[in-house]
Amino acid sequence: MAIKLVTTVAGLHAESARLLAEKQGASQGLVPTMGALHEGHAALARTAVEQNDVVVASIFVNPLQFGDAVDLDRYPRTLDADLALLDAQGVGIAFAPSVEEVYPGGEPLVRVTSGRLGEKWEGTSRPGHFDGALTVVAKLLHYGIPAAGRAGGAGLPAYRAYFGQKDAQQLALVRRMVADLNFPVDIVGVPTVRSAEGLALSSRNRFLSDDERGAALVLSRALRLLEERATAHEPLDLDSALAMVESQPLVKLDYFDVVDPATLEPLAENCRETPFRGEALALIAAKVGPVRLIDNAPLSS
Amino acid sequence: MAIKLVTTVAGLHAESARLLAEKQGASQGLVPTMGALHEGHAALARTAVEQNDVVVASIFVNPLQFGDAVDLDRYPRTLDADLALLDAQGVGIAFAPSVEEVYPGGEPLVRVTSGRLGEKWEGTSRPGHFDGALTVVAKLLHYGIPAAGRAGGAGLPAYRAYFGQKDAQQLALVRRMVADLNFPVDIVGVPTVRSAEGLALSSRNRFLSDDERGAALVLSRALRLLEERATAHEPLDLDSALAMVESQPLVKLDYFDVVDPATLEPLAENCRETPFRGEALALIAAKVGPVRLIDNAPLSS
Repeated sequence: MAIKLVTTVAGLHAESARLLAEKQGASQGLVPTMGALHEGHAALARTAVEQNDVVVASIFVNPLQFGDAVDLDRYPRTLDADLALLDAQGVGIAFAPSVEEVYPGGEPLVRVTSGRLGEKWEGTSRPGHFDGALTVVAKLLHYGIPAAGRAGGAGLPAYRAYFGQKDAQQLALVRRMVADLNFPVDIVGVPTVRSAEGLALSSRNRFLSDDERGAALVLSRALRLLEERATAHEPLDLDSALAMVESQPLVKLDYFDVVDPATLEPLAENCRETPFRGEALALIAAKVGPVRLIDNAPLSS
Repeated sequence: MAIKLVTTVAGLHAESARLLAEKQGASQGLVPTMGALHEGHAALARTAVEQNDVVVASIFVNPLQFGDAVDLDRYPRTLDADLALLDAQGVGIAFAPSVEEVYPGGEPLVRVTSGRLGEKWEGTSRPGHFDGALTVVAKLLHYGIPAAGRAGGAGLPAYRAYFGQKDAQQLALVRRMVADLNFPVDIVGVPTVRSAEGLALSSRNRFLSDDERGAALVLSRALRLLEERATAHEPLDLDSALAMVESQPLVKLDYFDVVDPATLEPLAENCRETPFRGEALALIAAKVGPVRLIDNAPLSS
C-alpha cells in the first residue's frame, strides 16, 4: 500500500509537509472519520482526492461524543480494512491517533459548544453529543492545516474538509462553527451513498437483521416521496410520508420533519398545502430493531 | 505614520501577505486589544515587534464579553491615539473591524465555552464574560494565521499571539483553549506594566479620582508583600497581606488568594505555614470607588 499511517500530530505534520513539497502541492484535503469505513466514506475520500494534491484521512473514535460507554466500546474498529479502503481511493496519509495523543491532559476544559442548533433533532436524544463532536472536529481541523505548499507560492495551500450529507445536522453545525469562529478551511458536503435498495450506508447497518434491514427501507422511501413532490412543485404532503413510515411495525419513528437547511428550524406549516419552492431538508430518525438510524434528503425546486 | 489601518478580514489577509512577502518574513505576531491603549499595550506591541517580522495589532471592543450594555458603551474609544502608539512601537498593521465585520450573521450560534476555569474568580462577578472573550479570541487567532512567508521556506511562518499577564485568568484560559483545541499559535504572556508607585496600568484607571488612585496602591503593595515572602522561601502570610488591604477604607475587596498558575485552584492551606517553594500566582480583585480593579503577581522560588 502507498498510504502512510501516522499516529502522532508531529508525524502528521511531517508527512504532510513532505508530501506537499514532493508534489509541489497547492491544496490539502482532510477527511475526518471514526473508522469502520464503508462506501460512503470511500465517496468522501474519492471526492477529496479529486479536489486536492494531498489528502489526509483521520480515524479516531472520539470518546467525548459518546454519552454511553457501552456504545463507545461496541463501536466497530477495523483499522486494516479501513487502511485498504483509503489506500484504494488514493488517500496519502491516514492519521490514527490514540486517545492520549488527542487528549493528553485528559478531557478538555475549554470546549466548543453547539448552542441551540445542537440541542434539537439528534441533540434531543443525545445530549452533549454535538458539543463533543464539534470539539474534536475543531482539533482535527487545526491538526490538518497544511504547511507551505508550492515553493514560492504566494499564499497558503487551499484547505478543504469533507463531511457526509448523511449526518445532516453535524454538517450544518460544522459549517456554522467554521463560519462563526472563522476556521481557515472550506467545508465540502458529499452526497449520501445508498445501497441498491435505497438504504443510506452507515456503520450501524451491520447490526440489523435481514428483516430489520428490509423494514428500514421505508425511511428512504418516505424521503423519496417528499423529494418527488418537491421536484414537481407540489405541496409536500408530510402526512402521507409519515403514514408510510408508521405502517411499518419494525420501525419506531423518532422524528420526521422538513426544515431550513441552515438553521434546521421546521418550515412553516403551509409547505404541506402550497406548492413547494426553494431549498429545504427532510430529516428522519427512527429505531429499527436495536439500531437507531438517521437519514435525510435535500429538497430543491 | 508607517502603520497601515485595515478594517476588513480580506484587507488584513492581503496586507499581511504583502508585508510577509516584502520582508521575506518568517514570523507573524498578533496583539489582540480592545483599544484605549496605554503603556501596558505598548509593552505587548514592543515584545511582538522584537520577536516577529510582521506584527498585527487588532482593536476591537467585543460586545460578546460585556454583560452590561452601559459598560460596553462607556468603554473608551481612542482610535487616533491608539494608532500613534502602535506605530511608535513599529507595528505594521492595525486591524480595526466593525461589529458587523466580526459578527456578520449576528451573535454566533457556535461558541467557545470556558468551562469551570471561566466560572471562578472574575467569572463569579462577570457570568459569560470569558465565554465571550474566548469566542472572539478564537476568531482573532484564526484571522491572524499568516499566509506563506519566506519564499521557498519549508513550512508556515511562526505565529505568536501576545497577551498581558495583568489579565491572569484570561491568559490562563487562552493558553488552555490553544492547548485543548490545538490552535496553530504560540501564546506569549507579557509582564504587567506599572506606574512608578506600583499601580498596574489599566484602561479603567482613568475613572479613578486622585484619592482613589492613592488608595488603589494597596493592591500592588499587598501583592509585593507575598512576592517578598515567596522569594525568601518564607510562608506566604496571606493574613497580613489581607489585613493591609482591609485597612484601606476606599478599597472594597472582592477576592485575594494564592492559586496554581495553570488551574487557578487555591493552593493548599499549608502555604500559609510552611516555607514557599515552586510556582504560584497571587490574585486580587477589589472595587476602588466606582472602579473594579484586578491585579496579580507570579510567585516563584
